[in-house]
Amino acid sequence: MVTVNAAKILINEYASHSNVSDIYINDANGHILAEDLYAIIDTPPFDSSAMDGYAIIYNDEYYKKNWTVIGEVQAGASVNSALQTNEAFRIFTGAKIPAVANTVVVQEKVNRQGNIFTIEKHILEKGSNVRPQGSQLKKGELILTKNSKLNAACISLLANIGISKVKVYSKPKISIIVTGKELIQPGTPLPDGMIYESNSFALKAALNELQIQPSTITITDDIKEDIIEAIQSNLMQDIVILTGGVSVGDYDFVAASLEQCGVKEIFHKVKQKPGKPFYFGIKNKTLIFGLPGNPAAVLTCFYEYIVPAIETYTKHIYYKTDNLPLINSYTKKTGLTHFVKAKTDGKTVEILNSQESYLLNSFAYANCIVELPEEEEIFEEGNIVKLKMIAHI
Amino acid sequence: MVTVNAAKILINEYASHSNVSDIYINDANGHILAEDLYAIIDTPPFDSSAMDGYAIIYNDEYYKKNWTVIGEVQAGASVNSALQTNEAFRIFTGAKIPAVANTVVVQEKVNRQGNIFTIEKHILEKGSNVRPQGSQLKKGELILTKNSKLNAACISLLANIGISKVKVYSKPKISIIVTGKELIQPGTPLPDGMIYESNSFALKAALNELQIQPSTITITDDIKEDIIEAIQSNLMQDIVILTGGVSVGDYDFVAASLEQCGVKEIFHKVKQKPGKPFYFGIKNKTLIFGLPGNPAAVLTCFYEYIVPAIETYTKHIYYKTDNLPLINSYTKKTGLTHFVKAKTDGKTVEILNSQESYLLNSFAYANCIVELPEEEEIFEEGNIVKLKMIAHI
Repeated sequence: MVTVNAAKILINEYASHSNVSDIYINDANGHILAEDLYAIIDTPPFDSSAMDGYAIIYNDEYYKKNWTVIGEVQAGASVNSALQTNEAFRIFTGAKIPAVANTVVVQEKVNRQGNIFTIEKHILEKGSNVRPQGSQLKKGELILTKNSKLNAACISLLANIGISKVKVYSKPKISIIVTGKELIQPGTPLPDGMIYESNSFALKAALNELQIQPSTITITDDIKEDIIEAIQSNLMQDIVILTGGVSVGDYDFVAASLEQCGVKEIFHKVKQKPGKPFYFGIKNKTLIFGLPGNPAAVLTCFYEYIVPAIETYTKHIYYKTDNLPLINSYTKKTGLTHFVKAKTDGKTVEILNSQESYLLNSFAYANCIVELPEEEEIFEEGNIVKLKMIAHI
Repeated sequence: MVTVNAAKILINEYASHSNVSDIYINDANGHILAEDLYAIIDTPPFDSSAMDGYAIIYNDEYYKKNWTVIGEVQAGASVNSALQTNEAFRIFTGAKIPAVANTVVVQEKVNRQGNIFTIEKHILEKGSNVRPQGSQLKKGELILTKNSKLNAACISLLANIGISKVKVYSKPKISIIVTGKELIQPGTPLPDGMIYESNSFALKAALNELQIQPSTITITDDIKEDIIEAIQSNLMQDIVILTGGVSVGDYDFVAASLEQCGVKEIFHKVKQKPGKPFYFGIKNKTLIFGLPGNPAAVLTCFYEYIVPAIETYTKHIYYKTDNLPLINSYTKKTGLTHFVKAKTDGKTVEILNSQESYLLNSFAYANCIVELPEEEEIFEEGNIVKLKMIAHI
């Protein structure tokens, strides 16, 4: 039996893999960038018009002249013909400024008759209403650094400079194996002595919150051969999560099955409540987590141990930790670290009722898990406790 | 031209639809419940063993007797045979307590020889190690109220009591139409005068953050017939988002195309920067948003107007608003509300550089948008400003 801290350190030691993959920016939201990114073009890629109006060569006496429209430039077009003094191109927002022109007069300041127009006197300067080439980004400029989290604005920026694929830290491939002969799927009548299977639903939803889809979900009976088969067919995954059958009862086959599959046990049993029978092992680069079957222990172990392991792959910190004062008191026995469901407003934290490991009610209302150290017994109002967020507030 | 407040009120008036749908709990994470949910069974559904051990009829002198094992109950099984005084069933965690038995002795407190065992004297009471039927939830008890957000723990709880489908507020069906003849897809060489299309990528990623996949994405040239066709084929959606072509230039066909499709204009132009040409219209129950083409205006209008509209469908508040003190100063002209990109730590807020509407850089680093009112000009360090989060901190 290891302590909670030892368990966390061991998992972190073995979980230090990360894979980098090239993905399309359309799929990159929420990923962490695995490379520095540089602008591959100037943006804007050319001097462009900021307004609908007329492109001219600026002249201090612009308001005294007659100007002749010699052509038009739509956005997306490119005009080669050179402009002479007192000539103009009709131009639209986003269009490329024709050669020699350097200023855009907005259409509202112009009085046009046929192809001839005059310009009202107003604050017009050389370069007015022109977005200079490279004024957003110059080619070669660093735009996003390695380890940046890609959000909608980043992806917009990447598309904007023509980057369609980026290197990111890949999400781990994860399989779920739920064991237990007492389990039946929700939505069907409940036979005597059986209970509804909920752990595959809980883990799928918890992974969904990290934007990860499990590769496979297998539900098996407490039959050693079935468990072994399920394990073997998932050992090419990055992470395998098993639930149930991990204690030392006569029908707890998970640890023995893992051993038979060549999985090396790193620890089995942690000085914690809930989730004391928690198992962790490895085979090659695959991490195997054996969680007890009770639903609240499954979620506790998921948030406390599996999320940090996933974070080593994706480099993404999903849930913050914090230290906040309690607004109620709590007493526990010494000897085990207790993880208790709690609710915080970001300033204080309240431990919720119903902490029994098979009780899920409080978990449904909790937004954080408070960690109460092994050797401490009494927690008073105002005591600072360590917590891990499991939702955004 | 309407004010920002008027625009928000009008959108909210027309966006007040919501659809309720029955979905499987496997797909329900992150949804808002559209019904009160009651436990449809007791949980645990029967008195069950909390430990591996022996089920007995409790007797004060338990430690003086010999007990006889008359059978075994695995988890998932159900035993009918009645127990006599000083008889016991071997029992495992989660298994149903056989009729008449009322107490479980943990296996560590038992000395067994064949089928006979004695029990060490320890703190054993009637009911020890038994999880009573209904001790988590009683049939008929309210478990989750309408408007609760479903998270992994809620879904675990629902599965646990056998509920496989729930009524939730549906996500709206959303289509994206990007217009502009100057646009070319990233990943291809850039022809002279053209720019890379980024708005479809930005909107897809921004919707992805709300766990919404757009139904369709259409990229069209600035050709009225093409725009009309794209609009018409998407008017069965809940929301249509167009970008580009919404000003009053000679090649801005969006407003006219929408009119021709029978869309009723609610407003066109908002006293804001960026995004002044912003258009909003309706046809039947479909909301149509016409956004200007510049990328930063697209994201600003998305977060400020479209996200609140989506929230009326899903009943989910995606991004919080707050009022926080500035740590830098900022000056703007009066006449328009400015939305500026900013970064907050939850206590103070800093307005970022590069606020030009075509500049995306600062947006990639921003986590909130600060709203600077129309008639105000000077914002000093320490002034309280209104902000909308666009990321979780």
